[in-house]
Amino acid sequence: MTDSPLKIGLAGLGTVGVGVLQLLATNKSLIRERAGRDIVVAGISGLNKSKKRCIDTSEFQWYEDAVKLGREPEIDVILELIGGSDGVALSLVKTAVENKKHVITANKALIAIHGFELATMAEQNRVCINYEAAVAGGIPIIKVLREGLSANEVNSISGILNGTSNYILSTMAESGRGFDEVLEEAQALGYAESDPSFDVDGVDSAHKLAILASLAFGTKIDFQKIYVEGIRQVSPIDVSFARELGYGIKLLAVANKSSKGIDQRVHPCMVPIASPINHVSGVLNGIVIKGNFLGASIHEGSGAGGGPTASSVVADIVDIARNNFIPTFGVKQKDLKPLKSVPMDERVGPYYVRLMVLDQPGVFASVANSLKKHKISMESVLQQTRHPGEPVPVVMIVHDTKELAMKNCLQELALVSTIVEPPILIRIETFG
Amino acid sequence: MTDSPLKIGLAGLGTVGVGVLQLLATNKSLIRERAGRDIVVAGISGLNKSKKRCIDTSEFQWYEDAVKLGREPEIDVILELIGGSDGVALSLVKTAVENKKHVITANKALIAIHGFELATMAEQNRVCINYEAAVAGGIPIIKVLREGLSANEVNSISGILNGTSNYILSTMAESGRGFDEVLEEAQALGYAESDPSFDVDGVDSAHKLAILASLAFGTKIDFQKIYVEGIRQVSPIDVSFARELGYGIKLLAVANKSSKGIDQRVHPCMVPIASPINHVSGVLNGIVIKGNFLGASIHEGSGAGGGPTASSVVADIVDIARNNFIPTFGVKQKDLKPLKSVPMDERVGPYYVRLMVLDQPGVFASVANSLKKHKISMESVLQQTRHPGEPVPVVMIVHDTKELAMKNCLQELALVSTIVEPPILIRIETFG
Repeated sequence: MTDSPLKIGLAGLGTVGVGVLQLLATNKSLIRERAGRDIVVAGISGLNKSKKRCIDTSEFQWYEDAVKLGREPEIDVILELIGGSDGVALSLVKTAVENKKHVITANKALIAIHGFELATMAEQNRVCINYEAAVAGGIPIIKVLREGLSANEVNSISGILNGTSNYILSTMAESGRGFDEVLEEAQALGYAESDPSFDVDGVDSAHKLAILASLAFGTKIDFQKIYVEGIRQVSPIDVSFARELGYGIKLLAVANKSSKGIDQRVHPCMVPIASPINHVSGVLNGIVIKGNFLGASIHEGSGAGGGPTASSVVADIVDIARNNFIPTFGVKQKDLKPLKSVPMDERVGPYYVRLMVLDQPGVFASVANSLKKHKISMESVLQQTRHPGEPVPVVMIVHDTKELAMKNCLQELALVSTIVEPPILIRIETFG
Repeated sequence: MTDSPLKIGLAGLGTVGVGVLQLLATNKSLIRERAGRDIVVAGISGLNKSKKRCIDTSEFQWYEDAVKLGREPEIDVILELIGGSDGVALSLVKTAVENKKHVITANKALIAIHGFELATMAEQNRVCINYEAAVAGGIPIIKVLREGLSANEVNSISGILNGTSNYILSTMAESGRGFDEVLEEAQALGYAESDPSFDVDGVDSAHKLAILASLAFGTKIDFQKIYVEGIRQVSPIDVSFARELGYGIKLLAVANKSSKGIDQRVHPCMVPIASPINHVSGVLNGIVIKGNFLGASIHEGSGAGGGPTASSVVADIVDIARNNFIPTFGVKQKDLKPLKSVPMDERVGPYYVRLMVLDQPGVFASVANSLKKHKISMESVLQQTRHPGEPVPVVMIVHDTKELAMKNCLQELALVSTIVEPPILIRIETFG
């Protein structure tokens, strides 16, 4: 192992970039011991040199043009902490790799969308791309999958990958309040962006799931194939019924491997109240992995924030300093298999259904006949106290059913005149 | 990276050894892709060649003398799966290292007791010692600490490291039955050995804690300094009071770093019912790590068993095949600090105390005066319905107190004539 310093170029001085500089300063001596050499920040780049930051950046060489860092002969490793799947971030990473520099990025969108192409370039240029911080900030899940569980055929990986959505759902469950109100509070507390769509509509979770699925199954990353549904439609009444039935509601990212292929999906799920994933609350992330020799393992921690994310970025630096180079997706590019996607209509599992019905003769017969026609079998049904003249909720749990049958059945029920609102459907995941 | 096969010598054909052979056969092609080369078993050694095993061993070169494997020029890596801190296991590991072979072991006692010496030998001979399987079989906790969290100063690590004890305590809590009865059942189910002392007396947990503490804090491994107390004294009445007070009882291994030094201890603990560690039930293991940038992360999975343990052993093989060599305890031997041990008497925290008292005038005054004398402040007290003439339990939770003050106070109370059984003390850990 060489003892010469490892020289870093850091682009992007938001929360994560500043966190990395703080960490490298605070834990300098222990990082030197663990890395076996000094880590030197040889250049930095941000949007605005004169902006006041909680760390003094004047001691570092400043680059107006982040992409120029990627061509600097002195620099060994580029930290891309800019964000965005394209633009400067993509240019910088490509330039760095072409110039034989290792890349560390916290950018899930970049990896989810351009990961395969970038990994091919990295392999050709014999450099590595590390991205521990891109998924579940404080949980070293990339390392766990790419190295720790390398002996296993992974059968499934699922989890809570977005802290904002989890905070909102946890708060809704605790307080009984609605989505809009809790979202506003989360924005005020800094847990949600002013434009929260990436988080609450499931896109952020889907970016992360695409990465985890590729690593877990050794398949070419394929973000486009993910079924994505967010949490805006989750209402307090369903949260309350879920609890009555013994479930919590979580935004899960799920990928399973079967003989038919791989399904990848992000949507609200009901999970058993006693299941470990249901205990992952607030802004935390949690991931469950099942392997053919491992059984199941669960990893839980902070999903975001400057500290936990910086912890992952710097661990990636230490890996490079130690000359630990793993292929981007765990195997050579030629060994990555195409992802044979199982369409969402093929999903089989239990479902929760809520209908708002007018309490008139015949309404139950319509429901029962439609279930029968689509071969859907009911596990339990709940009906609240009646309010004459007002619609009442009828809640059902149905046994394992194909998604397509559920969809067809609910389309039919939506046309029944005594069912007065669009039927609500929530998938149930039992981790059985 | 070289493409020549990596040649393994495997010693020890118990559950883990056989599990490793099964795993290497079952997942052969994916392991070849991830390792970047073939893994070849070049020799095996067990106690009895003709014993019937659930895998055909006749295709492998058999060695009567395990230690001979460690001298075989053809072999690159020795898997020591024999067990025991000394004897053949120790001889084999030393021989292998002296002959410039990497070593992979599942042997926590060996690493806990001889780890520093072996790591020094390994550094001199430029080989690595990997031992993922030694702690929490299915959880890649060694990799998480040695690599995944390498950017953090770790402040504390604690967890449930022994599946047998956790099974017994979980079953006691569910069923209300006593230790002896549940132990017998665990033995019948194969969850406990016929001699269960290593597990239930805390020694196994202490071996594992010594390893984790060395990795977490960068200190010389020091098993002798661990305070160890097992679970034989945990009685159903305390399990029941704990629940009433909002706690579960777990056998925890705890190591904390403070300005005074490092405490390392294994003992039954009361933990809040809602805490993640309390949800780790049955034979599972769970570990909580706190780092200065990370915050907290939690890792949960199978603690033992052929499959999960083999998963860890083979991940260690893949690391070596990928030329990932990390110093045994994460830093060079010269950088390991002596462990400055904080004596158990210095522990500060809340405590649960149960006294069996005869309901006579003055008994409460004795208790109150003794608490006052030792500056112990009570948070809550519970007294069950009185049975005239019979001893009744008086249960107290006391605020943060020094262990020594508690010990002195309880020694005094033990002498009070109306306190008719030795006082029971259980430490409370809040993970606050």
